[in-house]
Amino acid sequence: MLVIVSYDVSTETAAGRKRLRRVARVCESMGQRVQKSVFECKVDTARFEELERRLLAEIKVEEDCLRFYRLTEPVDVHVREYGKFRAVDFDGPLVI
Amino acid sequence: MLVIVSYDVSTETAAGRKRLRRVARVCESMGQRVQKSVFECKVDTARFEELERRLLAEIKVEEDCLRFYRLTEPVDVHVREYGKFRAVDFDGPLVI
Repeated sequence: MLVIVSYDVSTETAAGRKRLRRVARVCESMGQRVQKSVFECKVDTARFEELERRLLAEIKVEEDCLRFYRLTEPVDVHVREYGKFRAVDFDGPLVI
Repeated sequence: MLVIVSYDVSTETAAGRKRLRRVARVCESMGQRVQKSVFECKVDTARFEELERRLLAEIKVEEDCLRFYRLTEPVDVHVREYGKFRAVDFDGPLVI
């Protein structure tokens, strides 16, 4: 299955940015980063449970929000994508 | 069904920020914003087609990336949420 992981954390503090980096590292070891705080992970049930367990160990539930959306097979009928996937240095400075 | 809309746009330019605001307005008229560029929209097939059509009219496919993830019923078995949903002024200045 495809699991979409969405992680909402305040990056105003150094601790928040550190948590985002740690969450990102866990997700990237199991999938692909598609936005600053959105990841796509192709996993089976056992790997999904591992992913969930590892992420729950990283986040701070009083301050952060973590969402999992599980897409069932066949995944391609449930996903539509338009435009280009742009490789972005998500860990670089964000200039607005 | 629940549709997760993920919009990836460079907010480095004023034009990009304007597109993000316009995409957000369309999504918010049909659902809830859960992150800066992630929205949850509860829609039927007709409304989903309307949402897709309206968003494709706003984005610039050469520069942006728009993803739709469709979750099938029952939605609650496909969504897991941890932590708090924090109300955020997504249109306010982003201070890093």
